Amino acid sequence: MTEKLCSESYAEMTELVLPNDTNMLFNLMGGKLMQWMDIVAAISAQRHSNRLVVTASVDNVSFKEPIKLGYVVTLKAQVTRSFRSSMEVHIQVWAEDVPNQRRFKSNEAYLTFVALDNEGKPVSVPVAVPNNDIEKHLFTTALNRRELRLVLAGKMKPSDAEGLRSMFTEK
Amino acid sequence: MTEKLCSESYAEMTELVLPNDTNMLFNLMGGKLMQWMDIVAAISAQRHSNRLVVTASVDNVSFKEPIKLGYVVTLKAQVTRSFRSSMEVHIQVWAEDVPNQRRFKSNEAYLTFVALDNEGKPVSVPVAVPNNDIEKHLFTTALNRRELRLVLAGKMKPSDAEGLRSMFTEK
Amino acid sequence: MTEKLCSESYAEMTELVLPNDTNMLFNLMGGKLMQWMDIVAAISAQRHSNRLVVTASVDNVSFKEPIKLGYVVTLKAQVTRSFRSSMEVHIQVWAEDVPNQRRFKSNEAYLTFVALDNEGKPVSVPVAVPNNDIEKHLFTTALNRRELRLVLAGKMKPSDAEGLRSMFTEK
Amino acid sequence: MTEKLCSESYAEMTELVLPNDTNMLFNLMGGKLMQWMDIVAAISAQRHSNRLVVTASVDNVSFKEPIKLGYVVTLKAQVTRSFRSSMEVHIQVWAEDVPNQRRFKSNEAYLTFVALDNEGKPVSVPVAVPNNDIEKHLFTTALNRRELRLVLAGKMKPSDAEGLRSMFTEK
Amino acid sequence: MTEKLCSESYAEMTELVLPNDTNMLFNLMGGKLMQWMDIVAAISAQRHSNRLVVTASVDNVSFKEPIKLGYVVTLKAQVTRSFRSSMEVHIQVWAEDVPNQRRFKSNEAYLTFVALDNEGKPVSVPVAVPNNDIEKHLFTTALNRRELRLVLAGKMKPSDAEGLRSMFTEK
Amino acid sequence: MTEKLCSESYAEMTELVLPNDTNMLFNLMGGKLMQWMDIVAAISAQRHSNRLVVTASVDNVSFKEPIKLGYVVTLKAQVTRSFRSSMEVHIQVWAEDVPNQRRFKSNEAYLTFVALDNEGKPVSVPVAVPNNDIEKHLFTTALNRRELRLVLAGKMKPSDAEGLRSMFTEK
Repeated sequence: MTEKLCSESYAEMTELVLPNDTNMLFNLMGGKLMQWMDIVAAISAQRHSNRLVVTASVDNVSFKEPIKLGYVVTLKAQVTRSFRSSMEVHIQVWAEDVPNQRRFKSNEAYLTFVALDNEGKPVSVPVAVPNNDIEKHLFTTALNRRELRLVLAGKMKPSDAEGLRSMFTEK
Repeated sequence: MTEKLCSESYAEMTELVLPNDTNMLFNLMGGKLMQWMDIVAAISAQRHSNRLVVTASVDNVSFKEPIKLGYVVTLKAQVTRSFRSSMEVHIQVWAEDVPNQRRFKSNEAYLTFVALDNEGKPVSVPVAVPNNDIEKHLFTTALNRRELRLVLAGKMKPSDAEGLRSMFTEK
Repeated sequence: MTEKLCSESYAEMTELVLPNDTNMLFNLMGGKLMQWMDIVAAISAQRHSNRLVVTASVDNVSFKEPIKLGYVVTLKAQVTRSFRSSMEVHIQVWAEDVPNQRRFKSNEAYLTFVALDNEGKPVSVPVAVPNNDIEKHLFTTALNRRELRLVLAGKMKPSDAEGLRSMFTEK
Repeated sequence: MTEKLCSESYAEMTELVLPNDTNMLFNLMGGKLMQWMDIVAAISAQRHSNRLVVTASVDNVSFKEPIKLGYVVTLKAQVTRSFRSSMEVHIQVWAEDVPNQRRFKSNEAYLTFVALDNEGKPVSVPVAVPNNDIEKHLFTTALNRRELRLVLAGKMKPSDAEGLRSMFTEK
Repeated sequence: MTEKLCSESYAEMTELVLPNDTNMLFNLMGGKLMQWMDIVAAISAQRHSNRLVVTASVDNVSFKEPIKLGYVVTLKAQVTRSFRSSMEVHIQVWAEDVPNQRRFKSNEAYLTFVALDNEGKPVSVPVAVPNNDIEKHLFTTALNRRELRLVLAGKMKPSDAEGLRSMFTEK
Repeated sequence: MTEKLCSESYAEMTELVLPNDTNMLFNLMGGKLMQWMDIVAAISAQRHSNRLVVTASVDNVSFKEPIKLGYVVTLKAQVTRSFRSSMEVHIQVWAEDVPNQRRFKSNEAYLTFVALDNEGKPVSVPVAVPNNDIEKHLFTTALNRRELRLVLAGKMKPSDAEGLRSMFTEK
């Protein structure tokens, strides 16, 4: 069973918000941002697994401030934890109004991917090893997020989600 | 305070998966599907509110089977419940391999939108009124999904999320 | 020879006019609308024939009012009549300025498609059966539209187009 | 009233069929070709009128042979006749499989455009003057095509379409 | 060894600058223009060689005036000289503000392409024969441009670039 | 006169080659790569100048190996030197076949941008300060590249290009 540092999967994408990416208010469309998130996270999961990967799920994403035409968007993706043939990728999105030197964190999200072999069957991936405090925190909390995904997908009963239950019950 | 039936916000979108929408396996990209979901849900929220709307959040989306080049994708969106200036929209996605007469449910998701007035300020929307059993179920469960969104966005403490807590604690 | 109701081929597409779809006046481009018409009509013809289909012709389309950035466009397509391996599809296009609650019929058109087998050869399709007055009217008038297509394509002499001739000569 | 030669409005567009333009058979989509036709014809109408123009109608277009990925498509557009504020543009489309040195005429079509002044009101355009036999033929037959458009748009009774009637009745 | 006139490779492309092609100032993006240049030059090289071609290099391109949304862009491409399996293509770009009857030369560039056989191996192409003064000038100066490309790619020492050296040393 | 480190302008873009970006061989199109180079270099120039920027020139770019569908492309851009209102940006492009763990340098290029004030007039930018050996080398050689651009644009006589002349004459 091979191991690989989480940081080896790091991928960064920078995009300029162009008219083609915007809605009728000339703000970046939520769906377009999610498309970028999907691509950069897939690259990160590919780097970890050295395999073709397919999106398995996208966790809750919330949008705060509008990102306007001409802003620069930076997406940073890194694997947080692997589970047999799947990987959770953490993404952070910053928006930047460069001429006005304003930069703000726009979104954060977790996507999961499944690695496929050449026949398109799921295949096991290296163990992702966290190496600093932030990575370790993301590694640990990945279990709760996973339980939540399974509950939301109807694959686990809420009462069996022990991590979540303790989260919601402890004061 | 005006009221409006949930069903008045219904919007349906049919798309054909073209090369432009696919990844290197010629399967529909997850991010592209999310872009379609964002658009059809925005249309539904517009129909409910008769306002410009912006995406506030996209709940957990999971992807099951690959949707291949040439498949027909049908997205059905309808408002489930309104909260002052925001609306939750439920989306169901079907994929169809028409020549082989195979059709399967691909995804389900909840997106929330905020309605804006002409100055771009949030503005209150009509109360969404459910009118059959399915709509009533979606209306009721919207509260739990909302708590989850607030908890995930760090705007509510898990211990204050009463609906969720009871869900995770009851056997 | 199988039969199929015209209504089984119904397909509906909803699109939001985004900057990418507009011309320098930020109005929907005629060519972009025709592209959407082609796709939704192809889906309808696919549903009727359960075959791959290719566009054979697009009848005269006229554009009335501009459709502006941010409008919602709804396209409704249904097979009107089948001819051996080809099908005529009727499309209706509505444009909607949702915030101002204005909705107008923008276009109407007829497209024909040919169904192909796996070797790419034309293959016969089910007989399309109309089931209400509107469908019956479209079914009957399909013959004249077909004559017109043949005349315009130089495949029929105007003097042999009996249906058209009677239309142009009767007072 | 200014005059202008038809040939002054000539516009030529060459495109390479890329994956983005194709359907699931990797053939050029009918709708994409119509989008190119709309653009090149608009350029031609602009050149004749030196005005912004909007598409008023697209006449019957028929598709013969598939145009495959990698083919070169050449579109040639020229105004045939002007009518107060509108212009008819004739388009010819050739497809070319360059490596195999095969070239065939794919389509022919007529589009009409309306010229607009700066307030978006229709404005009169120069008289289009044909200058050779082909141009004169297109100029003369433009009247019949115009009658047909008016009849199909429900703006003229078939029995009032004198040019068409004689066409369909004479042996 | 076959010969072919340079003029037989002529290709012309006309494009309308649409929102999708522009940056946040609604001016044509440099990168989009380069994409068009690449396509039209590839078509020209294909016409000369009757082969699939791939871009080998793009020479220095400079941008003068902004090309605005709604302008018409005309690109004219023609092979200047062939070298075994490669061809140099000269491109001229004009921009046109049609309503204001203003037209200016925007760019000029040289691209080189390599012709490939069916196994993807470089294959020799016909000798390009210039036939007028302009073509002969482009044919002659192609040698210096080629030396410059080799020097810039690190494949030739500056001191071996005889044509360039004489250009830089002669008064 | 403000100064700014070259490294502060660093921008990195990661892209996945999708069907939409490829030619008929499903290799990344040269023009598409140039579009990405233009965007990431513009972001870098914006970061240095905190201004809107427009592309002034793209230096010679050569393409070596094909970049295939599904490869990951990484573009790294950084300002090398500033000249009053213009900046030269150096770009390095790597292509990566992740599943096969093969990574190669695909291209290198220099683009120049002009910074604009709010009226669209050129405006002076901070002095770019190199801070390590590589940056210093790029800073020094920027003068020769600038001379070459001026010569190629016909704005400087070859005989006045002292830096270039010495380069081509010294053994």
